[in-house]
Amino acid sequence: MAVAERAGTGGEASQAGYHAQIKAENRARIIRAARDLFLARGYDKTSLAQIAKEARVSTGTLFKRYPTKAALFAAVTSEQWQLDVEYAAPPPPGDPRYGLDHIGRDYACLVSRPGTAALCRLIITELPQMPELADIVGTGFAIDRGPFFDRLRDYLEAEAEAGTLDFRSADEQRLSASEVAEQFLGMICSQFLWPQLVRTDFVPPNPTDAAIVDEAVALMLSRYGTGS
Amino acid sequence: MAVAERAGTGGEASQAGYHAQIKAENRARIIRAARDLFLARGYDKTSLAQIAKEARVSTGTLFKRYPTKAALFAAVTSEQWQLDVEYAAPPPPGDPRYGLDHIGRDYACLVSRPGTAALCRLIITELPQMPELADIVGTGFAIDRGPFFDRLRDYLEAEAEAGTLDFRSADEQRLSASEVAEQFLGMICSQFLWPQLVRTDFVPPNPTDAAIVDEAVALMLSRYGTGS
Repeated sequence: MAVAERAGTGGEASQAGYHAQIKAENRARIIRAARDLFLARGYDKTSLAQIAKEARVSTGTLFKRYPTKAALFAAVTSEQWQLDVEYAAPPPPGDPRYGLDHIGRDYACLVSRPGTAALCRLIITELPQMPELADIVGTGFAIDRGPFFDRLRDYLEAEAEAGTLDFRSADEQRLSASEVAEQFLGMICSQFLWPQLVRTDFVPPNPTDAAIVDEAVALMLSRYGTGS
Repeated sequence: MAVAERAGTGGEASQAGYHAQIKAENRARIIRAARDLFLARGYDKTSLAQIAKEARVSTGTLFKRYPTKAALFAAVTSEQWQLDVEYAAPPPPGDPRYGLDHIGRDYACLVSRPGTAALCRLIITELPQMPELADIVGTGFAIDRGPFFDRLRDYLEAEAEAGTLDFRSADEQRLSASEVAEQFLGMICSQFLWPQLVRTDFVPPNPTDAAIVDEAVALMLSRYGTGS
């Protein structure tokens, strides 16, 4: 009896594992198909039915998970920021050189991935005619910053509280962590992402060994480091 | 006779002045019409004949000055950088706070003008299908930098030669003036120009009184200033 129960439980568990695996595979195929179609045809000219067909799932399966095209587009942009990132949470405070270096490198890697520039181009092209895209890209989660902005701001605040960084401004007031985050991400983004869109002679630097992040970190520490 | 000659010369001069004025007015009307049509219909869907009609000049007049649509588009983008700029040449070296502040403010003003973001959006949208645009935007004169990049690089080199700035790198080597120029313009551009394209909730800062340029200058001086 006990053995049969265990066997039964094991069977259910493996069946549940099988269903979870199918579900994850379906999700990955849907996201990939949606991304490919959005980038090839544009947001407006892509339908949920086309995506279901390309992903080899039923429209019922697709609609259950993503009831609108905007929801699916939001999932595609989120996915663009999810892979290969070391810090889901900010690093612990105490060593701003280490923390900024790692956040900066992860960010450089993600904005350098070809899909990021392509999605960015798509949004820039279609945004004026597609108010539904505004809800996705307009509320902080823009394609040039993803979840990085909030993480970096929280991290900078933690370093300031720990006394390792001091955000003095040019007029001897205090800058907010958000203002400093804009400087840091802006310097990196403007050398990895934007030139891909407006300069045809641009050769993207290798984000894993480029000195660009090192130099951005050095600028931050020269200005805001307390030496403690 | 002498009087008649002077009168004749004066008449010719005023006639030459009249022709020059007509020519300048025609040019301004052509650039304005081209810009309006490019932004309203896109580069591909705008013809030189439409521009001539909108500018109220003959197609002969238009073709004589701008034999191709690409040449006219290049003139439109150049014009975008020409107005209200204090420094056609770099400021004299010796006071990097003054020089960077002025170059930074002029640059912030130009990238903040609505036409800059609109032209940028047009280029980003049409660049993949329009190889003729690549010659205009791909060779250093991208819409995010115009003539500013070369001016700033030359200025930074002059300050380094004067000993007022020292471009040490994070690994104790030397950065080039171009690398430092990328940092400075990138920080400003990423807070004035790019957010207009990808964030619908973005409220552009006022470039003439925003602290963003002050803080970018302060960062540069903290890192590269020699104190001399």
